[in-house]
Amino acid sequence: MNYEFSDKVTGLQPSAIREILKFTSDPTVISLAAGNPAPEAFPVKEIAEITERLLKTNPVDALQYSITEGYTPLRETMKERMAASGCFNPDSDDLIITSGAQQANELSCKVLLNEGDTLICEAPSFIGSLNAFKSYHVNLVGVEMDSDGMNLEALETALKNANKPKLIYIIPNFQNPTGLCTSLEKRKAVYELAKKYGVMILEDNPYGDIRFAGKDIPSIKSMDKDGIVIYSGTFSKVLAPGLRVGYVSAPKPIIQKIVVCKQVSDVHTNIMAQIICDEYMRNYDMNAHLEEIRAIYRHKCGLMISKIDKNFSDKITCTRPEGGLFIWATLPENCDMMSFCKTAVEKYKVAVVPGTAFLIDDNETSHSFRLNFSTPTDEQLVKGCEILGKLSKEMFD
Amino acid sequence: MNYEFSDKVTGLQPSAIREILKFTSDPTVISLAAGNPAPEAFPVKEIAEITERLLKTNPVDALQYSITEGYTPLRETMKERMAASGCFNPDSDDLIITSGAQQANELSCKVLLNEGDTLICEAPSFIGSLNAFKSYHVNLVGVEMDSDGMNLEALETALKNANKPKLIYIIPNFQNPTGLCTSLEKRKAVYELAKKYGVMILEDNPYGDIRFAGKDIPSIKSMDKDGIVIYSGTFSKVLAPGLRVGYVSAPKPIIQKIVVCKQVSDVHTNIMAQIICDEYMRNYDMNAHLEEIRAIYRHKCGLMISKIDKNFSDKITCTRPEGGLFIWATLPENCDMMSFCKTAVEKYKVAVVPGTAFLIDDNETSHSFRLNFSTPTDEQLVKGCEILGKLSKEMFD
Repeated sequence: MNYEFSDKVTGLQPSAIREILKFTSDPTVISLAAGNPAPEAFPVKEIAEITERLLKTNPVDALQYSITEGYTPLRETMKERMAASGCFNPDSDDLIITSGAQQANELSCKVLLNEGDTLICEAPSFIGSLNAFKSYHVNLVGVEMDSDGMNLEALETALKNANKPKLIYIIPNFQNPTGLCTSLEKRKAVYELAKKYGVMILEDNPYGDIRFAGKDIPSIKSMDKDGIVIYSGTFSKVLAPGLRVGYVSAPKPIIQKIVVCKQVSDVHTNIMAQIICDEYMRNYDMNAHLEEIRAIYRHKCGLMISKIDKNFSDKITCTRPEGGLFIWATLPENCDMMSFCKTAVEKYKVAVVPGTAFLIDDNETSHSFRLNFSTPTDEQLVKGCEILGKLSKEMFD
Repeated sequence: MNYEFSDKVTGLQPSAIREILKFTSDPTVISLAAGNPAPEAFPVKEIAEITERLLKTNPVDALQYSITEGYTPLRETMKERMAASGCFNPDSDDLIITSGAQQANELSCKVLLNEGDTLICEAPSFIGSLNAFKSYHVNLVGVEMDSDGMNLEALETALKNANKPKLIYIIPNFQNPTGLCTSLEKRKAVYELAKKYGVMILEDNPYGDIRFAGKDIPSIKSMDKDGIVIYSGTFSKVLAPGLRVGYVSAPKPIIQKIVVCKQVSDVHTNIMAQIICDEYMRNYDMNAHLEEIRAIYRHKCGLMISKIDKNFSDKITCTRPEGGLFIWATLPENCDMMSFCKTAVEKYKVAVVPGTAFLIDDNETSHSFRLNFSTPTDEQLVKGCEILGKLSKEMFD
């Protein structure tokens, strides 16, 4: 049988990262290619306590159908926390629970864009979001990144010239894959440009809570006087990603449409996981927990940077992130990034992700690759950087 | 700010059931309007045991990111179970875990239909699926139901005349909302018609395991020699719906596309819930558990039918389901169904769902309403039927 698929999904391929990750199922491969939080950062004991108590005292609430908007006490907790950080405006916004930030980002695209409308994003950007947007057959336009965020001239050109621009997608904190932060100045400028051209902003902030150096920068959402910013967040990096609990805060009419789409997508998010997130914040010290996580990542990022500095060819330049999970390494134009990544995994059993995986069209050229420091053990991280360093010197020096 | 939404979602409204369910938040209202499984059917003790053991012995696997296709041991268990019932063909099919059957049904539509293509469904049908299909801006065509399933002439007319028919959506066992079963003869005929007109079938079977009378009828999937049937199921009615775990079995190329779409929708289904379902089937007696659930629903359905027979006006005819959660009550054409439902909830505090809620266009006329026997307690069920009976006699006799 020759199956015919919808135009939306005909060209959609599994994420290119998967091809690399195939190698990582070999236990002898050191993977610096993942994006998983460090398992030692999961509050296992507390989650076990909450779950045991819950299934003893209130099992039906944890197992029965629930409402699409999310577990009401968790929504209240998050509204308070988000209002405190300027990411929720009690007068005009609503906030709901989603199945990870992935769902929040996907549904924002579904409710706002017709097929062919333009969504503007950073280039490179998070492949999971890019594929979500592609699955609605929208026109994706990438804007090149400077070290302090999107290039503003390129952004304005895109806003002027694109077919029906509707949404700017941006990860302002420790962006995936580059690890870069958008400066306060640029956040303001992006906001003003969105306003000028009548488009909305989708601010995706999965990593904001794991800043381990430098100072917090106000979110774009906190500048929103015009009701044009949708803000998504997640418990994946601060509690545990297997729970699949995220949230989205936006002007009420937007949230109403997202709720209708979420209802037809999965009815509601796993309710036990929602209660776990809420009880954790109510009964344990979330801020102390965040400090612990930040210490783990501060250590791991520092270790990776020191090993890069010691071992890598001088031809490779790397970002120095102040938070998040990733470092972005860039080769000179005359060096073959893809051959480096392939040799590393096939011959030396160290996996990184080729930069092409984060482009709108992965046939385009990239001279960069992504390194992850959150998932490997310290030992793997050190050994992996030594091997990559040796190979880089062999190939490029 | 005046927000512009995509054409897909502009006309999409929250399910009409919600308007009725609003009244049911009043604790003095007796709700026969829900669709929740009976909470006494949840295996609470076993789920608590599994969860406690899991978070002690294997917490990272239960909390870390996992693969989109689902927890491998659960997929293996379900492939075996589904192969045994003819719903999985090991040679040509694949099977993945979804966030409820809702997600399986939604993504089947997303991967197969362009905007404007036709999806044919039973009329009336499950509102959650109808809204999912509508959210992709497809053309929905309803086929009237006989007591043994879709009217075949009407189905063939729809297949002949509709714009690009791509998919027939059918709930052959104890359909929501009617409680009716499609006969074996009609299952065969629907399959042959689908084949003749080159369309696929989406067979949704959430209630098949809760047959409490009569004999199982083979699934349409079990007749599939041509690779044209997608089969979706769920743990919502047999374990607990708050877990949000379902599954879908289909020819491999279809599953490949659904996986890509699931990846961008929620990355994967809550992993702890998936492990709970798998461990339950491996370590406890699922068949004995199903017998217990069937006994609960056999009792509740029988109780409701006896109270309907005793109390309702003779003008009302009701289906006599052999499984599932619902009874469908129909008034003569000259009786005002909507006024009956409104008076029942507003004046007498008993909620049922008006039949219009299950039509493609809820401005169409219906003379039926849906009664649920799984959620109310026995006492509520008896009292609710007595009140509805009294009102029906006042209004119609």
